[in-house]
Amino acid sequence: MITWPVPAPSLPEGVYSPLADAARAAAAAYGAARRRYPRQELAEEVATGADGTPTMRVDALVEAAIVDVIDAAQVNLLSEEAGFVDHGSAVTLVIDPMDGSANAAMGVPLSCFAGAVFRDGVATEALTVWLDTGRAWWALAGQPTPYQTTGRTTVDGSSIAMLRPKDNSREAWLRVASRVDRVRVLSTTCLETALVAEGSMDAFVDPGSDTHRIMDLAAAMVTLPSAGGVVMDVRGRPLEFDLDLSRRWSGIAAATRQLADELAETVVLT
Amino acid sequence: MITWPVPAPSLPEGVYSPLADAARAAAAAYGAARRRYPRQELAEEVATGADGTPTMRVDALVEAAIVDVIDAAQVNLLSEEAGFVDHGSAVTLVIDPMDGSANAAMGVPLSCFAGAVFRDGVATEALTVWLDTGRAWWALAGQPTPYQTTGRTTVDGSSIAMLRPKDNSREAWLRVASRVDRVRVLSTTCLETALVAEGSMDAFVDPGSDTHRIMDLAAAMVTLPSAGGVVMDVRGRPLEFDLDLSRRWSGIAAATRQLADELAETVVLT
Repeated sequence: MITWPVPAPSLPEGVYSPLADAARAAAAAYGAARRRYPRQELAEEVATGADGTPTMRVDALVEAAIVDVIDAAQVNLLSEEAGFVDHGSAVTLVIDPMDGSANAAMGVPLSCFAGAVFRDGVATEALTVWLDTGRAWWALAGQPTPYQTTGRTTVDGSSIAMLRPKDNSREAWLRVASRVDRVRVLSTTCLETALVAEGSMDAFVDPGSDTHRIMDLAAAMVTLPSAGGVVMDVRGRPLEFDLDLSRRWSGIAAATRQLADELAETVVLT
Repeated sequence: MITWPVPAPSLPEGVYSPLADAARAAAAAYGAARRRYPRQELAEEVATGADGTPTMRVDALVEAAIVDVIDAAQVNLLSEEAGFVDHGSAVTLVIDPMDGSANAAMGVPLSCFAGAVFRDGVATEALTVWLDTGRAWWALAGQPTPYQTTGRTTVDGSSIAMLRPKDNSREAWLRVASRVDRVRVLSTTCLETALVAEGSMDAFVDPGSDTHRIMDLAAAMVTLPSAGGVVMDVRGRPLEFDLDLSRRWSGIAAATRQLADELAETVVLT
């Protein structure tokens, strides 16, 4: 069993209620799952999600709690396991219920809830919660946040995080790692992009493995620009709200556009 | 400025007082440093440590607080900046005041205090504190702990953490990363080895860069065996208490001896 408790999220005033309720429900469900199931059962694959990837028990339990909130609030949901839950609302919450679920199931204390509010297809607000500590990052589109990126413009000397190397990204991973001053792999995109927004890292990169779905990047797409940074795809494909969960990207979250462009060039070798 | 507070450590009953006091002093000093200095000033190199590596301001501030505790308790200290502080005691605390100081200075919430108690050169007790959350791992040599490793015996299918790749370890890094199921780089050996002890990861490896000094591994050398795991050097060099801070190792902390041996073979290619 994982013995550490999962705290209630520390949410700021003013978060859109269904989004705040979803975050609280995710934390409560994750805490309950840890108390009830040992690591191996948290990690057990119990289904295949709407995005085509295996669903761990911990993913399923946390998402079920979020679906209950969404049903009560009568807003729409786009999520990796449930897919699109249509309540005929103009509001859709795009949510990654449990980002870093491999961490979450093992007890590595690096997993997140991340959600964004889309109104008629336009992102207006985002909330990221580091479930293991309750820390939250909140941003409104187009409005300044308390967070600010580092402002770094160059790969040389930078301190970044990357998605772990995969068969289709190993060379690019090493190329980027050899250039930067410091590299980390936390295995939770949503926490890593939040750390870029607050200025604790210069960038986060998927070096070309095309792992990201829209719910992995939606919160960052609001939070980073509000903090002075950018989110883009390494191959320049537009990041957009889409109900098609087969679409994938290789996201970059960076302190500046210049840094993002240089990282993309290092990955893709144009 | 880094805006998150540093909590007081949650220490169990029974920790050797000077070690507990040192951990509390480290957390208090790190919290005060964050409130007073912005990131760039925390990272500023203010001296060269006794181990020959640059000392950041945050390292210096935290270690100074620990030296005060050691002076009051009249035990000896072996630490990376101060070197050996001899009070003529039979007890020496081997301490890494701020493991993951690059994280700590940037605000990446992954940094630790780690200390071990040596009595006449024999390790008897260890305490690791994740400074950003206050979580603590405590172990007495030769006595069971509440932690237990995963028990995994094979590299294939394992979930591990590694020291970041360096110029002298890049090929071995990739070789190991290609074999395991999941790899992470948290940039704090002491937290990574504690997570191995509690069963949240199967192993942690420095794939041959010879980065570790005795204070990076001392706490793990007590904690891992008490939790059913092992700590060793990838090249089989004995890990031992030594006042010579120029000695370096490439540490492996693993759930089992078999896993440690297979990781070492993967790194060294015997």
